[in-house]
Amino acid sequence: MIGEQVSSAVEQFHAGLEANGLQGLWRVQTQTHEPRTAAVPHVWRGAMLREQLLRAGELITMDRSAERRVLLLVNPGLRAINAATHTLTAAVQMIKPGEIAPTHRHNATAIRFIIDGRGAYTTVDGEKLLMDPGDLILTPNWTWHDHGNETDTPIFWMDGLDRPLVASLNAMFFEPYAEDRQAVTLPEDYSARRYAGGHVRPTWERPSGPFSPQHAYPFAATYETLSHLARLGEASPYDDVAVEYVNPVTGGHALTTMGCEMQLLRPGVHTKAHRHVSSTVYQVFRGRGYSVVNGERLDWEQGDIFAVPTWAWHEHANGSPSEEAILFSINDLPPMQALALYREQAYEANNGYQDEC
Amino acid sequence: MIGEQVSSAVEQFHAGLEANGLQGLWRVQTQTHEPRTAAVPHVWRGAMLREQLLRAGELITMDRSAERRVLLLVNPGLRAINAATHTLTAAVQMIKPGEIAPTHRHNATAIRFIIDGRGAYTTVDGEKLLMDPGDLILTPNWTWHDHGNETDTPIFWMDGLDRPLVASLNAMFFEPYAEDRQAVTLPEDYSARRYAGGHVRPTWERPSGPFSPQHAYPFAATYETLSHLARLGEASPYDDVAVEYVNPVTGGHALTTMGCEMQLLRPGVHTKAHRHVSSTVYQVFRGRGYSVVNGERLDWEQGDIFAVPTWAWHEHANGSPSEEAILFSINDLPPMQALALYREQAYEANNGYQDEC
Amino acid sequence: MIGEQVSSAVEQFHAGLEANGLQGLWRVQTQTHEPRTAAVPHVWRGAMLREQLLRAGELITMDRSAERRVLLLVNPGLRAINAATHTLTAAVQMIKPGEIAPTHRHNATAIRFIIDGRGAYTTVDGEKLLMDPGDLILTPNWTWHDHGNETDTPIFWMDGLDRPLVASLNAMFFEPYAEDRQAVTLPEDYSARRYAGGHVRPTWERPSGPFSPQHAYPFAATYETLSHLARLGEASPYDDVAVEYVNPVTGGHALTTMGCEMQLLRPGVHTKAHRHVSSTVYQVFRGRGYSVVNGERLDWEQGDIFAVPTWAWHEHANGSPSEEAILFSINDLPPMQALALYREQAYEANNGYQDEC
Amino acid sequence: MIGEQVSSAVEQFHAGLEANGLQGLWRVQTQTHEPRTAAVPHVWRGAMLREQLLRAGELITMDRSAERRVLLLVNPGLRAINAATHTLTAAVQMIKPGEIAPTHRHNATAIRFIIDGRGAYTTVDGEKLLMDPGDLILTPNWTWHDHGNETDTPIFWMDGLDRPLVASLNAMFFEPYAEDRQAVTLPEDYSARRYAGGHVRPTWERPSGPFSPQHAYPFAATYETLSHLARLGEASPYDDVAVEYVNPVTGGHALTTMGCEMQLLRPGVHTKAHRHVSSTVYQVFRGRGYSVVNGERLDWEQGDIFAVPTWAWHEHANGSPSEEAILFSINDLPPMQALALYREQAYEANNGYQDEC
Repeated sequence: MIGEQVSSAVEQFHAGLEANGLQGLWRVQTQTHEPRTAAVPHVWRGAMLREQLLRAGELITMDRSAERRVLLLVNPGLRAINAATHTLTAAVQMIKPGEIAPTHRHNATAIRFIIDGRGAYTTVDGEKLLMDPGDLILTPNWTWHDHGNETDTPIFWMDGLDRPLVASLNAMFFEPYAEDRQAVTLPEDYSARRYAGGHVRPTWERPSGPFSPQHAYPFAATYETLSHLARLGEASPYDDVAVEYVNPVTGGHALTTMGCEMQLLRPGVHTKAHRHVSSTVYQVFRGRGYSVVNGERLDWEQGDIFAVPTWAWHEHANGSPSEEAILFSINDLPPMQALALYREQAYEANNGYQDEC
Repeated sequence: MIGEQVSSAVEQFHAGLEANGLQGLWRVQTQTHEPRTAAVPHVWRGAMLREQLLRAGELITMDRSAERRVLLLVNPGLRAINAATHTLTAAVQMIKPGEIAPTHRHNATAIRFIIDGRGAYTTVDGEKLLMDPGDLILTPNWTWHDHGNETDTPIFWMDGLDRPLVASLNAMFFEPYAEDRQAVTLPEDYSARRYAGGHVRPTWERPSGPFSPQHAYPFAATYETLSHLARLGEASPYDDVAVEYVNPVTGGHALTTMGCEMQLLRPGVHTKAHRHVSSTVYQVFRGRGYSVVNGERLDWEQGDIFAVPTWAWHEHANGSPSEEAILFSINDLPPMQALALYREQAYEANNGYQDEC
Repeated sequence: MIGEQVSSAVEQFHAGLEANGLQGLWRVQTQTHEPRTAAVPHVWRGAMLREQLLRAGELITMDRSAERRVLLLVNPGLRAINAATHTLTAAVQMIKPGEIAPTHRHNATAIRFIIDGRGAYTTVDGEKLLMDPGDLILTPNWTWHDHGNETDTPIFWMDGLDRPLVASLNAMFFEPYAEDRQAVTLPEDYSARRYAGGHVRPTWERPSGPFSPQHAYPFAATYETLSHLARLGEASPYDDVAVEYVNPVTGGHALTTMGCEMQLLRPGVHTKAHRHVSSTVYQVFRGRGYSVVNGERLDWEQGDIFAVPTWAWHEHANGSPSEEAILFSINDLPPMQALALYREQAYEANNGYQDEC
Repeated sequence: MIGEQVSSAVEQFHAGLEANGLQGLWRVQTQTHEPRTAAVPHVWRGAMLREQLLRAGELITMDRSAERRVLLLVNPGLRAINAATHTLTAAVQMIKPGEIAPTHRHNATAIRFIIDGRGAYTTVDGEKLLMDPGDLILTPNWTWHDHGNETDTPIFWMDGLDRPLVASLNAMFFEPYAEDRQAVTLPEDYSARRYAGGHVRPTWERPSGPFSPQHAYPFAATYETLSHLARLGEASPYDDVAVEYVNPVTGGHALTTMGCEMQLLRPGVHTKAHRHVSSTVYQVFRGRGYSVVNGERLDWEQGDIFAVPTWAWHEHANGSPSEEAILFSINDLPPMQALALYREQAYEANNGYQDEC
């Protein structure tokens, strides 16, 4: 009887808490010893992505009701937020000859990584940037941007955005431009040319702003550095020859909320496994191989896109003994570092290689 | 008929997308022109909080099943995550004479702001910190901490944590300590004493780490600066005389994921309204008055705690013509700044004052 | 004969070089394996300094021809530049009741360390700073400053300037003010009060400029920190309990060209010897003891000032078993660090203590 | 009589001051309203420099007694310190086929700018750097370095050092290497290749150290950026198209004590005059033209080297209507900025152009 009275008193107390806008910590506490995420490892096939984009090209017209012909890559664990990882949106986009994607801006930051097609453009704050395969195009937070295709073949690219992160921070702003196209006020490919060469800068220039002033990173220069590093034999045990795109004015991350990397897996290389408090979406730019993610083997080849959730063990293997494999990727490393939440851990057992399921 | 066929083709296409782990952006896009949050302005009364804590003291025993006698302040719009704003946890906690809250660590960062009771302690990484009203105690990300009360009266404080932020980033780690109490390895109140004086530092000390090495900020020193600024007449139009707790080694934010501030509303002051991309939880340390939040008047007095969501217009009024009002607060300004998502806007109409509903 | 011809050819060649504004490196090269300086260790006695200042007070009138009654402390090795070390000017100054030292500014940075007298003032950019023994007053590069004495007793202080450094960089600017006194536009002791408390700062304040915005560092706060550190037992093996005056907004050096330090030698302490690429001028604020500099013993007591040249071995001893000794000092550590020229070295032999000559 | 007595008393007082190691400020004070320097504008002709180097090649043998066949460019105002400006050493050096300049290190920082000859080398901390015309080679403070010529033609370059600065700071260290040649431990031209491309960096690399880790800056990449900027029409009114060599890891100055710049004067350009608290030594890499320095016209052509003292008005003119002129230069801007001594001023009169004497 006394036990029941106590129990009843506690129940009443708990009910009273909720009536007063309170909750006992002891009722909801579930200690999380390590990061958990609803996201799962997943591969989207390149052939399927292209087929669906071509089909969308037949059915979906670009206008103010569907401003972008964008297919979001939805992680099976994240259908509620249509995201690729808990912080990253990944998507593919196609623009057909003669089309334009009208001008707007938002404080989600976006990048474009060009997959196929040559010579279409993105205009960013008055700078018209031509897009060729392997190029990276930045549209930082709150920059006006529109896309167009004045060539005679469709262009295909991958979009990466920090939208889930910005949405979870309740910090989204969006603004449409008065007209479809913004005026081009700078010479074509202004910023990439301006920073070409890389090791000198105009004497009158001072660092300003949190984002890279360089909006286009042509593939050739990136590949040249990767090739040099490969020849020098400098490589990470976990990523092989990997580089980050940087802000040329500060040497730091190009963006505050997303990191962009390109890695070259030399022929025959199989990296060791590690995990870190950051999630990644990879686009297979060249070659074929596989990654082992939390013990699951994900085979991939040119055109595929795959997601590796946060704190998941992962290792990469180039499947060819003679050809390079090149992976472009986006991640949420910069925000995790900025907030002092980043950690990484090497896989110690089995000489650093996971057992595959 | 043709319209139906098209419609059917589009429907089939959309179904095919989902089967392939894709989603058309045009189907889910809801442009958010300004930040939206589920959180609402809300006040928790001090008398109620004290009453519920005392009742919890009768019913809830502190042990490894209920390690902390903590009452979470649940924003009516955020019941799903038991949070005070979308990024901040606020709570009240009571420890009775003789009790201890056992040692653990987590990479959610926490602060304690002491409301009532004198002389209980928190131990942080071997440093025993005595807690008096108005003191601020930091337990940065991954520091071992336990609490205890060796006095003969209960102690009451407010807890602030970045837990919703860290949870939304899927970055939680937690670890219990082997024993209830950690060893005290430093002299009592070591770090507050070490940094007392403020304008000099040991010659051998170098900045290191992202967090303040000072773990306790006694009220007296904070109040002295507030009083000086009040006498000098230096004040913000939106917050009156307001200071931020800083890392004495760098002059920057004390923590990476939360800001801590104390503000003194001089007698009779009514500030102008503004809004910003950061949310705030206020504890009324002294005095009485009201805030107008998105046109709603929130009256408050000593002991009350209230939440102001992100991007909400807000202004503060000291209700007394002769007495100071003092508000302690926590916010998510540091992460918003670090990620370049911070903005603020002054309320232009009506000379800067909102109409109250 | 051939040797003579060669010799003659070389001589002609050397003469031709000089005629063309050239010089052969091989003719002038003297490799300096370690820093050399013309400065020597030297002590100026406090009693003598006071006597000479009083005599100057009888003979030297302050007006536009002798704007400051300043006695430069001339290192016996540096008579050509009237300096205390190769980069530092040290001097003593007295202002009698009713006198003023008229307003000017220069881009040599100066500090004042108050030795005796209470309540005279320095005005720095509109801020009137009262001067008590042990206080440090900054007049950074290009700030307007004047001194005055409205009390009925003379005031004595030590001046420290980076003048030899700025002169060797050919970078001196000087400007007299239109009137003797500048207007006081800020409340008395504005900046010291504004930054009092030390661990919080106004929310609206952003770091700006290379110099500390705090212009006065009262002795009490400095001594409190030294005492805390002494009680905690935290000390340097070379300087015992030593603190640097910092810029409260950045945590860094208060000035760019000079460092200011205060050290407390606990009763009976005898530090170990080291040397570094920076020179120092010490003022004995309290106590008595001695320093060993390059093997030479320099005895000192309250009021004395002594110079330790760059790269000279030095160690300090408090001569009393029961009383503290307190040394204030200026140095050129900040510029040496900024230019990456700083080094230090511990004295390894003899357990860290030099043999005295 | 009374006047004489006073005068005699003052004289005795002054004598007493000197006997006590003191000096009255009023006796030595010479207020410097603006920077003064003993350095004068001066041109050394390229043809003369080459002729004297060739003659030195006949007469001066490189061995441990004359380790470098270096001709110092002695400013007519600075014969006492054999310097080109008060902070900078400039020199020319020739190494004949088969010769080596043995390995040593010093904490004077040096640069080499290659004038003529192709394929000789400098080895810096184990990295062998091939030297072609227009390349810049860095040997930062305390890096081991030696030079050699394994080709069949002599190589000519300009040396730039911060030696007068480091000497005036009494901070010189020097150390010979045990052997003439250091071991080559890195692939040839390692650092230039490693940082080629410029806008990406290895993911595992963290900024460290105050100096650029890139030791060679090939001419081609520098010229490409200059050409881009020229095409874009971006230029300084005082220097036309001018770039600074930067540390690719930080975006900041490549060195702490010297700045290195390259400027392209477009055909027909005549810049406006300004002056600044920094001195410069220019090498005319291409073209012909003239500079007006403090009203004096200095004509120059390819191969000439000329000095512009600190705070001297200067403007530059490309003498050709059709050919570019390219000037390489070293300066002391970085230390002046680091110490907060830098200022600049535009020439306002006469639409920005000086009258020539």
